Amino acid sequence: MAGDGHLSLADVARLAGVSAATASRALNGKPEVAEATRARVLAVAQEHAYVVSPAASQLASGTNGRVAVVVPHLSRWFFGALLEGLEARLRQADLDVLLYHVATRRDRADFFERLPARRKVNAVVVLAFPVSEREQARLAMMGVGIVAAGGQIASFPYVCIDDHAAARQAVDHLLFLGHRRIAMIEAVDPESPEWTDGMGRTTAYRAALADAGIEVDPELVVRVPWGGAEGAAAMSGLLGLRVPPTAVYAHSDEIAVGAMATIRRAGLRVPEDISVVGIDDHPVASLLELTTVAQPVREQGEVAGQMVVDLIAGRDVTGRAVPTRLVVRGSTAPPRGAARTAQSEVGDREPSPA
Amino acid sequence: MAGDGHLSLADVARLAGVSAATASRALNGKPEVAEATRARVLAVAQEHAYVVSPAASQLASGTNGRVAVVVPHLSRWFFGALLEGLEARLRQADLDVLLYHVATRRDRADFFERLPARRKVNAVVVLAFPVSEREQARLAMMGVGIVAAGGQIASFPYVCIDDHAAARQAVDHLLFLGHRRIAMIEAVDPESPEWTDGMGRTTAYRAALADAGIEVDPELVVRVPWGGAEGAAAMSGLLGLRVPPTAVYAHSDEIAVGAMATIRRAGLRVPEDISVVGIDDHPVASLLELTTVAQPVREQGEVAGQMVVDLIAGRDVTGRAVPTRLVVRGSTAPPRGAARTAQSEVGDREPSPA
Repeated sequence: MAGDGHLSLADVARLAGVSAATASRALNGKPEVAEATRARVLAVAQEHAYVVSPAASQLASGTNGRVAVVVPHLSRWFFGALLEGLEARLRQADLDVLLYHVATRRDRADFFERLPARRKVNAVVVLAFPVSEREQARLAMMGVGIVAAGGQIASFPYVCIDDHAAARQAVDHLLFLGHRRIAMIEAVDPESPEWTDGMGRTTAYRAALADAGIEVDPELVVRVPWGGAEGAAAMSGLLGLRVPPTAVYAHSDEIAVGAMATIRRAGLRVPEDISVVGIDDHPVASLLELTTVAQPVREQGEVAGQMVVDLIAGRDVTGRAVPTRLVVRGSTAPPRGAARTAQSEVGDREPSPA
Repeated sequence: MAGDGHLSLADVARLAGVSAATASRALNGKPEVAEATRARVLAVAQEHAYVVSPAASQLASGTNGRVAVVVPHLSRWFFGALLEGLEARLRQADLDVLLYHVATRRDRADFFERLPARRKVNAVVVLAFPVSEREQARLAMMGVGIVAAGGQIASFPYVCIDDHAAARQAVDHLLFLGHRRIAMIEAVDPESPEWTDGMGRTTAYRAALADAGIEVDPELVVRVPWGGAEGAAAMSGLLGLRVPPTAVYAHSDEIAVGAMATIRRAGLRVPEDISVVGIDDHPVASLLELTTVAQPVREQGEVAGQMVVDLIAGRDVTGRAVPTRLVVRGSTAPPRGAARTAQSEVGDREPSPA
């Protein structure tokens, strides 16, 4: 706004009785300024509505301090909670957060194609969607650091959960309760169906069933886009089977809540007739007594923010998985007649040595 | 990145065989550049990872095109959906979105106090929280436009729903069904308990009951922070009354969902034993068959984005409320013995002329 009748940095410095360098340091929140001096400079700046020009600020701080955060969904809890933790850490480090919502595959490609023509950013944080090798190469060439939060991307620092381990906690819980006819509602992002994010959640189901000596019944595996309504529709399909499942493992709590709604709409009870388990610990899970595998989402955002700060400071950063834990609530129980079934199954699997 | 071995704008122009002005227009997505020329400039820029410096970009476009979006909650659907619509419109206008999460009252005050020392923004959008007169004055003095989305702020352009009208739709629906003992679970933001945002939702309850000749029973009004768990707790209190309500009107769907969970946990049925109505049409509402008053949230974000574009272009902008509508689902029904009650009430209120 200098030139519009507002003050320049030099004017602010003069009125506050300090050097321009000190005024700049005070305005940019640098530590090497006495508190009283800082207060005087800020008072002058505020009184005259002084605005630091981006160029001046860059010169003063040696960096423009901008981080692009790229989000595929904004109205879903998982992404919002991730963003909350991330923003908190970046703000604390006085980095500006530029938000890019990329709902479609085309939006995502556009973001990486147009980035060179955009204002310079110091780093890019990608929230839970895949980045192609070509896009990664372009960012690397531009000297822009990239961090993946809520999912893993090849050669860049990431923070996420161990999907396979989380899913084993969910499916092993159902197996322990005595379920053998366990359905899986798989989630897929229609904008990147090839991504391997959900894969751990799928391989764990197959591994857990194999370990229990159960063959996967393809009828019991349903693949839908992430979302509650999609989970409700998938459950309708499962209830249409000649022999419906006694338990349902869903790739997310939102899907699980949809499945529970369908079960109840059919006049059946959770968990007496059908058990349901999800992954996330979405706030609605505790309300609706959904058994789930909890992941620390806000914390993943904070870790990603710290990785950005470290990258910009030139420190080494490596990927990291945060732990999950099973939270048993009221949506899971042994199947009807579990004791008898379990015995006969044991009998099936372990014929007497005679 | 110029000076780091990367190209200057002049270099890009030379390699593409165009003037620097044309190269700048092409990189900034201005219309007055032939498609073939634009493609050539972008190809050169991308090949050499050219980055437009913020200063150059400002000179070229005559504006830095930055909008600060200030959000009190990021992990709640309402704010995420609002942000989604807003970001879409601002991005379309090629404005950068700077995200500021202000969870606490202190964060909010900080944002406005530190704004002068921050990088210049062209406008500020405040998502559903109050801004004091002092803060408004500071923004006005700085020449920064302000738009309020999801709530109304005194003298600035806003987009929101008519809270009173929306709440009347909810409460009148319960009254029409024959309910007379109707509870209200009021929501309040603990960080700005004085804000009048929820007031329309409260005054409408009182007005609707008064119109129906019903005196408000203070026991039936519970005040809690926004949120599902808070709604669940409030409902526990209502079920502890000597005569619990036959219907509950909640200020939001999240609160209503919490109330429904408590009702079911107590072994009662919705709507047979107690009806529940909310406001929002949160995605979980259709899943759980919650009757609600729907508001177009994403659209409010888009309208706010258009207001920002208009403000920056120097056009006049006025506040505007978007319409709501009642969506009847399975959580509301006449109270038990409604016909008899309705008759006796009519008898009470309209004594025979004899």
